[in-house]
Amino acid sequence: MKRAQIGVIGYNSGSLPIKSKTLDLAYEVGGIIAKKNAILVCGGLGGVMEYSCKGAKDNNGFTIGIVPQEDYSSANQYCDAVICTGIGLSRDFIVAYSSDGLISVGGGVGTLIELCVGYIVKKPMVSISDSGGISDDYGGKYLDERKRILIEKIKSPLEAVEYILKKNGLQ
Amino acid sequence: MKRAQIGVIGYNSGSLPIKSKTLDLAYEVGGIIAKKNAILVCGGLGGVMEYSCKGAKDNNGFTIGIVPQEDYSSANQYCDAVICTGIGLSRDFIVAYSSDGLISVGGGVGTLIELCVGYIVKKPMVSISDSGGISDDYGGKYLDERKRILIEKIKSPLEAVEYILKKNGLQ
Amino acid sequence: MKRAQIGVIGYNSGSLPIKSKTLDLAYEVGGIIAKKNAILVCGGLGGVMEYSCKGAKDNNGFTIGIVPQEDYSSANQYCDAVICTGIGLSRDFIVAYSSDGLISVGGGVGTLIELCVGYIVKKPMVSISDSGGISDDYGGKYLDERKRILIEKIKSPLEAVEYILKKNGLQ
Amino acid sequence: MKRAQIGVIGYNSGSLPIKSKTLDLAYEVGGIIAKKNAILVCGGLGGVMEYSCKGAKDNNGFTIGIVPQEDYSSANQYCDAVICTGIGLSRDFIVAYSSDGLISVGGGVGTLIELCVGYIVKKPMVSISDSGGISDDYGGKYLDERKRILIEKIKSPLEAVEYILKKNGLQ
Repeated sequence: MKRAQIGVIGYNSGSLPIKSKTLDLAYEVGGIIAKKNAILVCGGLGGVMEYSCKGAKDNNGFTIGIVPQEDYSSANQYCDAVICTGIGLSRDFIVAYSSDGLISVGGGVGTLIELCVGYIVKKPMVSISDSGGISDDYGGKYLDERKRILIEKIKSPLEAVEYILKKNGLQ
Repeated sequence: MKRAQIGVIGYNSGSLPIKSKTLDLAYEVGGIIAKKNAILVCGGLGGVMEYSCKGAKDNNGFTIGIVPQEDYSSANQYCDAVICTGIGLSRDFIVAYSSDGLISVGGGVGTLIELCVGYIVKKPMVSISDSGGISDDYGGKYLDERKRILIEKIKSPLEAVEYILKKNGLQ
Repeated sequence: MKRAQIGVIGYNSGSLPIKSKTLDLAYEVGGIIAKKNAILVCGGLGGVMEYSCKGAKDNNGFTIGIVPQEDYSSANQYCDAVICTGIGLSRDFIVAYSSDGLISVGGGVGTLIELCVGYIVKKPMVSISDSGGISDDYGGKYLDERKRILIEKIKSPLEAVEYILKKNGLQ
Repeated sequence: MKRAQIGVIGYNSGSLPIKSKTLDLAYEVGGIIAKKNAILVCGGLGGVMEYSCKGAKDNNGFTIGIVPQEDYSSANQYCDAVICTGIGLSRDFIVAYSSDGLISVGGGVGTLIELCVGYIVKKPMVSISDSGGISDDYGGKYLDERKRILIEKIKSPLEAVEYILKKNGLQ
């Protein structure tokens, strides 16, 4: 039977420098997902994706990276399994669809796309407060005038993970 | 040789009622794209997509609808060609990639996804002023802190189309 | 209203040398599609795709290339419109879904994938006799034991196009 | 670090009745993948996919189902993780790309597509002898005239799994 799958979304490495506080938050979120025995799902690359995977692995969790490429060479080293989509950045849809809920930590426009997809299919979504970028811009907000589902703004990684689990009736 | 391809994005029919002013703007944008001899690209469904296609057809233009489904039965009747993607809403990426520039008229979260994709690959983008929804929310703004490319806010459909053509060196 | 869309599939340029007879057949198929006022749909690249597009353009037809890439720089110069999917080779599904019928001219394993997709959704399919590769291997056959739809084997490009149109009630 | 990922492909339930011998082989393949500590990757649905997942779970393995749908409700009950692609049957590309090698057990045209994708990117591929359908038709053959990589024909599920591992330098 499918285990709980929690998506962590946020900055990739490489474009803007990412604050160490943001990466620490990503690491912490990953660790809690592992402790709660949920599978961590992410886009499989660097930055927030890598740090959250590392956090999960340091806590004996299981991690899945869903990468844009046809092969797994771009995946970060903390992915237990790599899904090689070969569909480029439109794999953002698959990250959101494959998560029982999304936790955003910082992030740019790719993170915004994942939140939009989560909004369309009404996934529970949390942005971590003061993690920067898109997460700070959209926490506590609806993504369009239909107000389908709110992006919750939560400071504590533990409470963020528990929020997703509760919304799925798992805690 | 490829002709100019201009994407029109905005509200689909069916969820929220769309103001007649917004649909009139969509119709007008479609007509101007046709008069400029560019191909109109869109998501192929109802609302802004349908009205812009109708505007293009009433002015002897050519229209392509890129639909989520595997078959063309959901396409609006003003599409000359229908691209049946079978990949669901992630076809939003293909709409943006396949356009030399995007013009948004109103719109919800799907429109926001298309703008995000355009932003990633730096397509010229225009939101029509006072057309509602996402277009009003994001006109004149950048989609994340990297400030890759601005979404221009333009009132006149004629100037919007000319802006896209100029940015492509076509006028 | 959607015009008839006929897909031409077969060898890409670049891997194996393609016989001039095969390219001549592709050119001829493209010309007839144009004369019948149908839109030519293809994968947008070289080889059979390019020659069929050239045949259509020399006969005042309209051509659409559905390419794997995010941008149109790889498309052959005879495409009027380019659909930039950004989903890599899985765009083969879109080529098949977007065609009212498929005509194969030679071809390798990519062509076989397109025939398989056509077979799943029961598109009329024709392989041109003596055009080489996959077309010769699979003409007159079913693709699996369910015998959903036969790949017709037809020698004449004219009759091949007419077969697709007839099966769609268009001639 | 990514664990070994072995793809099992073959008949879905529902169209043709599947011989119990074929399902037994699928179950056995799944069990061996688990014993070898590799992750089982598949299309997540019924038939061969379900039996191989059950085999893996009965041997304490880990299973990933990559389904066509946007949600996981169609996945078989033996998937530990479900990747919800939302891209329909073109998810066949992702199954093949995400596997370090493919083992086919029976199968129809969908299985043939997965073998074609494996052939393009030169994945080690094995068809289990006497498992029916596509596996019997294509075992021991190349998929086109370029002869990129042979589909090995192997009778024993144990040897099939060991073949894939060896080709990846893992045994």
